[in-house]
Amino acid sequence: MTRNELVEQIKKKQSYLCVGLDVDFDKIPKHLKKRDEPVSYFIERIVEATKEYCVAYKPNLAFFEKMGSEALNRLEAEMEEMPKDCFLIADAKRGDIGNTSSMYAKAFFDIYDFDGVTVAPYMGKDSVAPFLEFKDKWAILLALTSNSGAEDFQKLEITNAKGEKKMLFEEVLSVSKEWGTPENMMYVVGATQAEMMKRVRAIVPEHFLLVPGVGAQGGSLEEVSKYGMNKDCGLLVNSSRQIIYASSGEDFAEKAGEEAKKMQQEMKQYLEQYMH
Amino acid sequence: MTRNELVEQIKKKQSYLCVGLDVDFDKIPKHLKKRDEPVSYFIERIVEATKEYCVAYKPNLAFFEKMGSEALNRLEAEMEEMPKDCFLIADAKRGDIGNTSSMYAKAFFDIYDFDGVTVAPYMGKDSVAPFLEFKDKWAILLALTSNSGAEDFQKLEITNAKGEKKMLFEEVLSVSKEWGTPENMMYVVGATQAEMMKRVRAIVPEHFLLVPGVGAQGGSLEEVSKYGMNKDCGLLVNSSRQIIYASSGEDFAEKAGEEAKKMQQEMKQYLEQYMH
Repeated sequence: MTRNELVEQIKKKQSYLCVGLDVDFDKIPKHLKKRDEPVSYFIERIVEATKEYCVAYKPNLAFFEKMGSEALNRLEAEMEEMPKDCFLIADAKRGDIGNTSSMYAKAFFDIYDFDGVTVAPYMGKDSVAPFLEFKDKWAILLALTSNSGAEDFQKLEITNAKGEKKMLFEEVLSVSKEWGTPENMMYVVGATQAEMMKRVRAIVPEHFLLVPGVGAQGGSLEEVSKYGMNKDCGLLVNSSRQIIYASSGEDFAEKAGEEAKKMQQEMKQYLEQYMH
Repeated sequence: MTRNELVEQIKKKQSYLCVGLDVDFDKIPKHLKKRDEPVSYFIERIVEATKEYCVAYKPNLAFFEKMGSEALNRLEAEMEEMPKDCFLIADAKRGDIGNTSSMYAKAFFDIYDFDGVTVAPYMGKDSVAPFLEFKDKWAILLALTSNSGAEDFQKLEITNAKGEKKMLFEEVLSVSKEWGTPENMMYVVGATQAEMMKRVRAIVPEHFLLVPGVGAQGGSLEEVSKYGMNKDCGLLVNSSRQIIYASSGEDFAEKAGEEAKKMQQEMKQYLEQYMH
């Protein structure tokens, strides 16, 4: 999916919601567990109920890998069922030496037909570049994450070769933005740290940001929107648990749809207020 | 596998060789390609020919994922065939928020029965800790890699909360060594940067190091051994292409065995010379 197509979807649906499909067999409603393929059924129902209100889905690869080899068959099947007007993100956090990253890129872009893959920056340019060589596909680089471990290294004060002092994640943004363009790179910026959003936007004003951490992890959607939005919206805000596990009863899909709609309506308001 | 068991194997085989199974269908000998399951056959023959000379195997997960869902069936089958006296490393470079890392850990340790998994440090403690909760299993954390992109961030000068100045990879070592023990953590330290080995050993004298970059990538086995070895050896030196693609003819397995033996014999000498 191109940037233009994504922006068009955002305007059409008045939403920049990404639904995270962190689907754990242990957490799906009990009454589904007797079915054949309960996880697939759960995902299909959730997608059906939320697709009107979101512009992206983000399956978490770990939750599939955990299920062993048959789960990737399932992932292939799921991907074919996904709505074609949604941006599809493989939350995989890959990153390896060049020829290995090429393999991952082929897997996610060619076999599973994702639009973007989350990538870790620690191994530098040649670990990210292979994800940038596919037409209309995206590398989504970790900059500042929303977990507690983000404090360990991402905010360390660094001094770069030019003698500039900044935080590590700021150097990651400054250096990596030269590897691609705002048409094929996004950044993960955790919403639990919305005061950092200004610092991010000072370095990458144009790029799309994938923002986890709203809802269950405590980030504020309004703050993220206020400080993070640009003239193309430039945000995909992810919500997982709050939507997909909104109810553990028979009405799980209906409730997921309601939660997604609630977020979409808040987003509609912020799009009017903050998109500039 | 416990540390004691690993050290025992090293002493018994007089080798600290890890054979990297970066097996690409495009690169296996042509005459195999007409067979059923050529990649599996290739791996089995390589393992058979090298197992006497190495103490570890490191399948590269990307090369399996690229083949789509059936490849993980194959990985499951391969893993069952692996020699039980070898340390088995999933080269996966995973790392995600806590509950997601837990899923990866379950996948690699419980389903596939690997002994260790390579893990990226950027997301900090809670992304690594789940890999440390399995008995006799190992997290192998990226510290200093052997690719060109290692220069982008890993060697940045940082100033930590105590006001100490050092390189980022040194801070990764200092901070992360508190998360586990030399019984359940190893570090990836690229051999192309053997002069850095002293700095690594100053921080983690006891830990095992997984060393890529010898051979095809230009690192010197002697330098690595001289500066990296400790009283338990403390090294697993990886070689992939130089061994597995030693010949593209009918004699591919024989030549792979010869290459592995050549490295083992050099290692035997260094074990006498440098283990202290």
